[in-house]
Amino acid sequence: MKVARVGEKLRRYYHYYPGTVAVIGVLDPEKESRANFMPAVWNAGLSFEPPLFGVAVSPKRYTYHLLAEGRPFSVSFFGFEKAELVAALGGMSGREVDKAKVLGLELLWGEVFEVPLIKGAYAAYELEPFGRFPTGDHDFFVGRVRAVWKDEAAFDEDGVPTPDRVRALLYYGRYLYGPPAPEVRRIKKP
Amino acid sequence: MKVARVGEKLRRYYHYYPGTVAVIGVLDPEKESRANFMPAVWNAGLSFEPPLFGVAVSPKRYTYHLLAEGRPFSVSFFGFEKAELVAALGGMSGREVDKAKVLGLELLWGEVFEVPLIKGAYAAYELEPFGRFPTGDHDFFVGRVRAVWKDEAAFDEDGVPTPDRVRALLYYGRYLYGPPAPEVRRIKKP
Repeated sequence: MKVARVGEKLRRYYHYYPGTVAVIGVLDPEKESRANFMPAVWNAGLSFEPPLFGVAVSPKRYTYHLLAEGRPFSVSFFGFEKAELVAALGGMSGREVDKAKVLGLELLWGEVFEVPLIKGAYAAYELEPFGRFPTGDHDFFVGRVRAVWKDEAAFDEDGVPTPDRVRALLYYGRYLYGPPAPEVRRIKKP
Repeated sequence: MKVARVGEKLRRYYHYYPGTVAVIGVLDPEKESRANFMPAVWNAGLSFEPPLFGVAVSPKRYTYHLLAEGRPFSVSFFGFEKAELVAALGGMSGREVDKAKVLGLELLWGEVFEVPLIKGAYAAYELEPFGRFPTGDHDFFVGRVRAVWKDEAAFDEDGVPTPDRVRALLYYGRYLYGPPAPEVRRIKKP
């Protein structure tokens, strides 16, 4: 093991990868109610009761301003076979283009909130704004899960997205994507 | 896709898994400077400048009180071959036992802070407390990365932990663990 002290910035900050990609969906009311999407690899579950989920978004991103206005949003999870779609969503800005139109996306709309979703995800949440925490060069937007969309074939009887049912899209850093291995091990608490 | 509205609690909250496990390490000054560890699957990168990393910890956990006192902490990442060790760390409480002693762990200590680390991780951070955010039934503890420990063999020339170099330990929920598949795809922005 090599140790390095860290200063103001950490350029190659990938040690904790791979992780699933949460595609944020939010209505853009300024642009003829366009649907806006962006992938966020910095995401995490946060609470069971109430059910909370968080995503880190940079103020440089167009999506940031839509979330900062306290709008409800969705997060969606895709399989590895949708890697190109997810990468493409991150490669263009909603400031300039209508991503859904450019990519020919088939949209769905939330049941609880007017939030856009992309057809083809295996799971998605509709989220009510809960809080926004300043964290360095990003903000951490926390939402309360008000609805769950899921493709039941992707989950086992305990609600777990096992790799034999769904090849979740994992991100490694530097434009690298992959699926999980089929191998799993169940380890009960001692 | 099936949609379900969500009330106060979400019992099967695994849709966004799998994710890597961050093993938190913190000194317990009350118990003869014992090293305490707990695995946290709810973790995320948060900022490049300054480099920030967050972990969600429930007040039910013994580790919570040690972190809430504003102590520096470490997070470490292990390969799939260490799944039993990581599961065992989550299956006992530092309130009752000295996990390092019970499990026969070989410890290392931080370069910047007096934080414990477990030999055998492929990467670890030493973190300075940055902030604590209340998020439902957990708190989200955010730390600033002050040192990076890494096994260089686990990372490619860009600093990415590719699956041909390291089989990162992934958690799926319900005691299920697995590795990533060797397959990766590089998708450059359009």
